[in-house]
Amino acid sequence: MSPKPFTFALRGAKAELEEGLSFTPKFDADGLIVCITQEASTGEILMVAYMNAQALQLTIETGVAHYWSRSRNQLWRKGDTSGQTQKVLEASTDCDQDAILLKVVAGGDGGACHTGRKSCFYRTIESSDAGIRLAMR
Amino acid sequence: MSPKPFTFALRGAKAELEEGLSFTPKFDADGLIVCITQEASTGEILMVAYMNAQALQLTIETGVAHYWSRSRNQLWRKGDTSGQTQKVLEASTDCDQDAILLKVVAGGDGGACHTGRKSCFYRTIESSDAGIRLAMR
Repeated sequence: MSPKPFTFALRGAKAELEEGLSFTPKFDADGLIVCITQEASTGEILMVAYMNAQALQLTIETGVAHYWSRSRNQLWRKGDTSGQTQKVLEASTDCDQDAILLKVVAGGDGGACHTGRKSCFYRTIESSDAGIRLAMR
Repeated sequence: MSPKPFTFALRGAKAELEEGLSFTPKFDADGLIVCITQEASTGEILMVAYMNAQALQLTIETGVAHYWSRSRNQLWRKGDTSGQTQKVLEASTDCDQDAILLKVVAGGDGGACHTGRKSCFYRTIESSDAGIRLAMR
């Protein structure tokens, strides 16, 4: 069943955005907001993804991470196909309310990346005389 | 002095993007890529910001965090006005190379947020019967 339509409040002036307690997230031109997902117990960054208003609402109201898949163009409850669910222990937003941070407990095998790895950030960026290259962790 | 013009390599097929060691970052329609900045010693997320190709190159080559300010529309070496410099201990990218993660040591007062707080994520998002609201940490 679809959730009831939800509209977040209009954004106020800078002082209200930064110091107020009204949640008025800023969605981009595509209706999306960036979300960083962090393992609660270790602080490890698992992934970066995007949410539309519905995914954000469902995440906050259900305590289970939902995203918007830009490649499939659809709402995506993390773990529905992979088993890699994410129970949200805390959600927060930043000073200008244009980013979301989730602290989660990962279900399934504990991973988050579709490549089978725990974290999507499995390659470091290295600079040398030969240029800028990646290295596997 | 301006750095030499820099062009990152063209992006390859999905397998190369995900498993290869060529660094081919994906910039959005505005020429920007999202960057998550994490305190190396604690894992705390300090901020989320954006980089253009020049900011990314300078960050990697100098080991000092540079961003692109979307509000001022200019390159921004973090700390130049605030003293809140960021020494980069590690930079990494995610599976599809459209996000950057920096692990940093913060200079100055150790903070990152222009509001004076250490982290930009100083408000949690709370759901109740009264709706969705923020709460100060």
